[in-house]
Amino acid sequence: MKKFMNDPAAMAQESLFGFAAAHADRVVLGAGAKFLRRRDLTPGKVGLVSGGGAGHEPLHIGFVGQGMLDAACPGHVFTSPTPDQVVAAIEAVDQGAGVLLIVKNYDGDLMNFEMAAETAIRAGRRVETVVVADDVAAGQMARRRGIAGTLFVEKVLGAAAEEGMALADLAVLGHRASAATRSIGVALRGATLPTASRETFVLAPGEMELGVGIHGEPGGQRAAMGGGADIVATMCDRLLDGFDHGGEGALLFVNGLGATPQSELYLVYGLARRFLESHGVAVARSLVGSYVTSLDMHGASITVALLDDDLRRLWDAPVATPALNW
Amino acid sequence: MKKFMNDPAAMAQESLFGFAAAHADRVVLGAGAKFLRRRDLTPGKVGLVSGGGAGHEPLHIGFVGQGMLDAACPGHVFTSPTPDQVVAAIEAVDQGAGVLLIVKNYDGDLMNFEMAAETAIRAGRRVETVVVADDVAAGQMARRRGIAGTLFVEKVLGAAAEEGMALADLAVLGHRASAATRSIGVALRGATLPTASRETFVLAPGEMELGVGIHGEPGGQRAAMGGGADIVATMCDRLLDGFDHGGEGALLFVNGLGATPQSELYLVYGLARRFLESHGVAVARSLVGSYVTSLDMHGASITVALLDDDLRRLWDAPVATPALNW
Repeated sequence: MKKFMNDPAAMAQESLFGFAAAHADRVVLGAGAKFLRRRDLTPGKVGLVSGGGAGHEPLHIGFVGQGMLDAACPGHVFTSPTPDQVVAAIEAVDQGAGVLLIVKNYDGDLMNFEMAAETAIRAGRRVETVVVADDVAAGQMARRRGIAGTLFVEKVLGAAAEEGMALADLAVLGHRASAATRSIGVALRGATLPTASRETFVLAPGEMELGVGIHGEPGGQRAAMGGGADIVATMCDRLLDGFDHGGEGALLFVNGLGATPQSELYLVYGLARRFLESHGVAVARSLVGSYVTSLDMHGASITVALLDDDLRRLWDAPVATPALNW
Repeated sequence: MKKFMNDPAAMAQESLFGFAAAHADRVVLGAGAKFLRRRDLTPGKVGLVSGGGAGHEPLHIGFVGQGMLDAACPGHVFTSPTPDQVVAAIEAVDQGAGVLLIVKNYDGDLMNFEMAAETAIRAGRRVETVVVADDVAAGQMARRRGIAGTLFVEKVLGAAAEEGMALADLAVLGHRASAATRSIGVALRGATLPTASRETFVLAPGEMELGVGIHGEPGGQRAAMGGGADIVATMCDRLLDGFDHGGEGALLFVNGLGATPQSELYLVYGLARRFLESHGVAVARSLVGSYVTSLDMHGASITVALLDDDLRRLWDAPVATPALNW
């Protein structure tokens, strides 16, 4: 697989430097490129820190800015950032009101963010953690991975922090937002790591991978690939299985996994919207684009997040980041 | 090649319906889906209409909204919209101050937009046309194709129209903006049409296509693919060849061609920025993303647009469209 890159081992960092240069009006790299933070921090506001492996851009670096994250810690490709990176980010953004960590539900991320939180707390800081676990392909919530729904959780928490919400309340809101969010992914072609010459998994013509995550891992189920309507119905069936949506309006977020053209994403969006509305879920807000990716994977995920009045207001609140802006 | 689609022949229109549903707060489809227009038109403002084949999304439909286009006419995949579509769009957006057509320099587009303009003028309307021809791979300006630089021309004209600029002045400004803009593209993998099973051109491992357009056509030159720095140097050499940039600040726009992950685009951006600055071009503004695409082509283009005070102010002016928003 071809890539625009120089040294494969340095690719993620070279790309990060490009990102920081392109968005220097809004963000700045921390010392040693341990984290990327907002150029202007707000005194007295709770700091929001997230992070994870590289290869998922624009997640998380593209969400640093007003109304969303204060800092993001990028690891190597598909590899958690180190505790040291997260501690540095916490120290850089703590404005006296404490720091909230937003962590995707993967063992490596959980462990490293937890170690960082303990270190910071021992040093006298206030730190809380919200875990995002939206991937219904993995079964029960405790085992669910954090995938595209992370964008929703980071957006609403960012808006609430901007309004002045206190650390403990943000943690409660974060759990509520995560619980209201479900995602499912499908891949038509696997991803290729910069350091590898073949895909992380190989699909035959006419095959798709249902329940795929964002780390190049295969999903729970390989299935025959039908037309768009079949694929979307299969995905939405899984999304709505056991989901008590109570007729509330929802955010429908169709996300590309890295190499999926926009025309395909909007086709999926149209089909998913029709499916959801015919199953009693009113689509109140929409987002379509490649925001939570897996390098060059060809695939898409569908996320449904139930919006009560609070969550809808926080979703609508202004945001000014490199990747989300309204 | 796999795609999220149902009937291949209906794919572009199904996707368009999804797009219109997702962005119904801002845009509305015209009768028969001949065009997509802003939901709220501004009385007395010159109307801006563009269009072209489908498969280049978000160009042009994603640029319909405040501060940019009033309407876009989507054709079939890689096929010009019909004169009939363009006439319908002109009639829908003309608010008494005339209509400006923004056309990419391809024979089919030129012919169909010209026929539409003649029809509208015979019916008593005022219509002017701006042709975008930014692709330096094609040699002299008259033969240059319109590619990613079209975004820049549409953005600055949209801002100027919003400020109340008159039709004749907009046409002059459009020619000036187009002349200030140069682009060059490279593909690492060709595109696949929904109705075809193989790529429009096939590259061997280690080969790239330099000077590629956005219609799946091959470029002027097949070349050995080096590392990122080599590719970018080759592209920027072509961009700056004979370009009298006079030390003015420039917009650097790195554009993905459809299947290129963001991490690769930012890597290209960082390298291009360094190259330009070491050759006397100051990068004053930046844009990175997949905005002018060619279905699922893996590739990128680099656009440099020279910014005088006027063009910089118009670029910075507020814009609120599905794809560009600030």
